[in-house]
Amino acid sequence: MTTADSVLAQLGSMEADAQSRWLDWLRIPSVSAQPAHDADCRRAAEWACAQLREVGFSARLVETRRHPVVLAHFSGAGEGGTPHPGPHLLYYGHYDVQPPEPLELWNSPPFDPNIVQGANGPQVVARGAVDDKGQTAMWLAAFRAWHAAAGALPLPITVVIEGEEEIGSPNLDDFLRAHAAELAADAAVISDTSMWDVETPAICTSLRGLVYMQVDLQAASRDLHSGHFGGSALNPLNALSHALGQLHDEAGRVTLPGFYDGVAEVPAERRAGWESLHFSEADFLGEIGLSVPAGERDRDGLERVWARPTADINGMWGGYAGDGAKTVIPAKAGAKVSFRLVPGQDPARVADSFRDFMQARVPADAKLSFRVFGCSPGMAVPTDSALVAAGRQALEAEYGKPAVLIGGGGSLPVVESFRRILGLDTLLMGFGLEDDRIHSPNEKFDVVCFWHGTRSHVRLLAALAGG
Amino acid sequence: MTTADSVLAQLGSMEADAQSRWLDWLRIPSVSAQPAHDADCRRAAEWACAQLREVGFSARLVETRRHPVVLAHFSGAGEGGTPHPGPHLLYYGHYDVQPPEPLELWNSPPFDPNIVQGANGPQVVARGAVDDKGQTAMWLAAFRAWHAAAGALPLPITVVIEGEEEIGSPNLDDFLRAHAAELAADAAVISDTSMWDVETPAICTSLRGLVYMQVDLQAASRDLHSGHFGGSALNPLNALSHALGQLHDEAGRVTLPGFYDGVAEVPAERRAGWESLHFSEADFLGEIGLSVPAGERDRDGLERVWARPTADINGMWGGYAGDGAKTVIPAKAGAKVSFRLVPGQDPARVADSFRDFMQARVPADAKLSFRVFGCSPGMAVPTDSALVAAGRQALEAEYGKPAVLIGGGGSLPVVESFRRILGLDTLLMGFGLEDDRIHSPNEKFDVVCFWHGTRSHVRLLAALAGG
Repeated sequence: MTTADSVLAQLGSMEADAQSRWLDWLRIPSVSAQPAHDADCRRAAEWACAQLREVGFSARLVETRRHPVVLAHFSGAGEGGTPHPGPHLLYYGHYDVQPPEPLELWNSPPFDPNIVQGANGPQVVARGAVDDKGQTAMWLAAFRAWHAAAGALPLPITVVIEGEEEIGSPNLDDFLRAHAAELAADAAVISDTSMWDVETPAICTSLRGLVYMQVDLQAASRDLHSGHFGGSALNPLNALSHALGQLHDEAGRVTLPGFYDGVAEVPAERRAGWESLHFSEADFLGEIGLSVPAGERDRDGLERVWARPTADINGMWGGYAGDGAKTVIPAKAGAKVSFRLVPGQDPARVADSFRDFMQARVPADAKLSFRVFGCSPGMAVPTDSALVAAGRQALEAEYGKPAVLIGGGGSLPVVESFRRILGLDTLLMGFGLEDDRIHSPNEKFDVVCFWHGTRSHVRLLAALAGG
Repeated sequence: MTTADSVLAQLGSMEADAQSRWLDWLRIPSVSAQPAHDADCRRAAEWACAQLREVGFSARLVETRRHPVVLAHFSGAGEGGTPHPGPHLLYYGHYDVQPPEPLELWNSPPFDPNIVQGANGPQVVARGAVDDKGQTAMWLAAFRAWHAAAGALPLPITVVIEGEEEIGSPNLDDFLRAHAAELAADAAVISDTSMWDVETPAICTSLRGLVYMQVDLQAASRDLHSGHFGGSALNPLNALSHALGQLHDEAGRVTLPGFYDGVAEVPAERRAGWESLHFSEADFLGEIGLSVPAGERDRDGLERVWARPTADINGMWGGYAGDGAKTVIPAKAGAKVSFRLVPGQDPARVADSFRDFMQARVPADAKLSFRVFGCSPGMAVPTDSALVAAGRQALEAEYGKPAVLIGGGGSLPVVESFRRILGLDTLLMGFGLEDDRIHSPNEKFDVVCFWHGTRSHVRLLAALAGG
C-alpha cells in the first residue's frame, strides 16, 4: 500500500508545478458579486474541472441561476481491484473571490499574483491568494501527488467547488438538494479557515452564521437643495444614520429585539481550551492599528469574535461624496448591514427583527426596501469524531506539535447546509493566517502555509485510508 | 431722458439674441467644486467679461487662489455730460454651478441646454439654467437693452461675478477687502433668489447662513473581514452613524450644545406677513413626493425653512456599495454635514460645537478629521430702504401686482460680506421658482421668468435713475 511518505516524496518534485497552477488560477478575476465578471467566474470553474480530470476525476459544471458549480467524482476501485476500505469524502472549496476594490490600495494588481518576501518567507499577493483558491489549490495539489505516486487516490472522493460563496451561496442549498444522492459521502473536508499561528495547526470547530442585508431608503422624488428644503423635507441620510446609529447600546450590545434569544454562554471546558491559547486582544488589534475592543464591553477577546453575535454596517452611501461642498438633500440613501450569528440564533428571525427595527425608527415618509444576500445560522461540529481524530493525526505529523481546536468568527454557511441537507459533518482544516488580509487589499498567502497545507492533505488521505 | 418704456421696446427686438447668449453660457461646464473643470470656470468668466465689454464696461478677471472674479465698471458720465444723479449700484452674480451628478438622472445632458414645454410655457433645462447664470444673464440682457436704446446705462454700475459661490465663496471676502475702494457703491443688487409663485414677484429680506463641513473617520489601518474582526475591531460606519444619528432629538431639534443660542423667535409683524401668503406645506412637500414635515415638530411651514436652523447630512460614504455582498469592515468612512443658520447664530461656534459633538461620541480609537467648506451667518436686510422701494416699484409695474417680502432658506454669504466689508445693503430681487430643481438633476428656468426678470431689471435701473 502507498504510504504518506512515498506521496510526500513525490510531492517534493512537484513544487514548481503546483505553485504555477495555483498562480494560474489566481489570474482569473472570478469576482462573483460583479456581473461584469460572470465570464471570468465560468473560466475559473472550467480551470478547476480540467485540473480534476487530469488526476482521474470525472468532472463537470452544473449550472445554477448564477455561477456554475464544479462537481467531480473519483470513485475508482482500490488497489488490486477491491473497493476502497476508507470513508467516502466530500471536498468543498470555492473558486469565486471578493471584489478587489478599493484598487488604489493594492501594491500590485490584484489579479497579477506577486511574490514578495514576508516574515515567514515568500508569500503570494493576489485576490483569492488564500480565500479560497489558495486553500483549494492545496488539496488539488495533494490529489495530483497521490495520482502521480500511486496512480490513484486512496479513497473515493467527491468534489464540489462553488462560485457563489462570497455572495452568500444563494443557490448552493438548491444544488445540494437536487444532487443529494450523487453527493452521498461519509464526511466533508474544507480548507477555508485559519491556523492558530504559523507554527500551530488548528481545526476549527465552530463558526458564526451570517445575515447580510441591504437597506434602501427613498425619501423625496428627487435630490433637493438643502437651503430651500432643509428643515421641512425628509433627509434619507439623517434618517438612515438615526436608525442604524441605534444598532448598539452604550455597552456595545446589539439592540435588535430578540437578538440574543438562544445565545448560550461559552461552556467552561471550551473557555478553558481558549485560555490555554494565551490570546492577546491587544496584539490582535495592534496589528491593525487599533487598541480598544469595539464590541460588547463585558466579554473576552476570543469570545467576542468566536462566540458572540455582532452587527456591522459593511457599506453606506447617499448624497455627494466628491470634492468640496454640494448642498444637497439626496432623494435616497442606502446601507449594507450584516449580523454574525452564533448557534441558537435563528437567521430568519434576525432578518425580520432588523426590518422591524428600521421601520420603527424612520419617519412615516421614508420608504424602506430590503434585500437579503445571506441568511445562515452559526454552527458547531462535534470534536470527538474519527474525522477530527484523523485531522489531528495528520496535522501533528506534519507540524510536530498538536493541533489546537479553535472557533472562527467568519461564516461558512455550507457547513450548516452539509449537515442539514446531506447529513454530513465537516472537518475544517485551514491554513490561513490572521494577517492574510482576506477581503482586503493585498490579500496574501504564505508559501510555507501552502506547502504544509498541501502535505497535511496528503497525510489526511493516508490517515483516513488507514495508512 | 430715456424711459423704461423705450428700453423695453428695444428689448422686445432682442429676445432671440438674449436667449442665445444665455444658452451659450450654459454650455460651459463651470463646476467650481471639481478641479477637472478649472479651465471651464475660467472660460465662463471670460465669456462674462466679453459680454460686459460689449455694452460699455471696462472688465477684467481678478485672480484668486482658485477661480477668478469678473470685475467690471461702467462709470461714464450721464446724459449731456453731467454726472449721473442716481445711486452707484454693485451688481453681483456667480458664473459657477453645482456638480451635475448623478448624471443618470438627467433627461438631457446637463451642459447641452434643452428647451422643453412646461406648465408656464417653454423652459430651459441645464445645470446653471437659473442658478445663477440664468439670473445673471437677465441683468446682462437688461444692460444690453439700455446700451442699445440709450447708448449708455443710466447709472454708474460695478459688476462682480464670482466663480466660487457653490463652494462657499472661500476667497470672496479677501477679494472684497483687497478691492474695497474700487468697489465703493451705494447699494448692491442680486438676482439669485425666487419669486413667491410664477405670477407673484418677491423681494427676499432674509437668508440662512451655512456651515458646511466634512468629517472623516479613520479606524483600522486597512479594510478588515467582518467575520474575523467583527465584535472586536472598530467599525467606522457603525461609529459615524452612531454619532451623526444623534444630531436630532425626537422633536426634530438639533442637539449640538449651544446650537440655538441667539436664535430669536419670529417677530409678530413678520409672521403676519407670512400668514398672508397662505403657504401650504402639504403642497410644498407634495410636489416632491413627501407628506410629513421632517424638521422641528413645533414650528410652522415657512418658519422651518426661513427662520429656523437645521442640520443635514449631505453625503456619506464608506465600505462596499457595489452589487451583492462584501463582508468588509472598512478602514474609514466619511460624511459631509451642513448646518443652515439664522441671524444670531455664530457660524464658528457651530463648527466648533460640531467637532466637539463628534469627538464626544466616537470611540477612543476613532481618528476624526474635519474640513470646513463654508462658514457664513444668517442675514436680514432692512425692508424700509429706498432700494427696496425701487425694487417694489419695478416689480409692481412689471407684474401688475405688488411684490411680497419673503425669506429664503438658502444662503448667500455674499450679502453678509457686502454689509460687513463694504457697508452695503443688498436688494435681493430674484425670479426663480420653487420647482426649478436647482442643485438637482434637470435644473430648469422658465423662459417667462427670464423675460419678466430681464424687464424688471430694465425698470429697476429706470426707477433708481429717477425715470
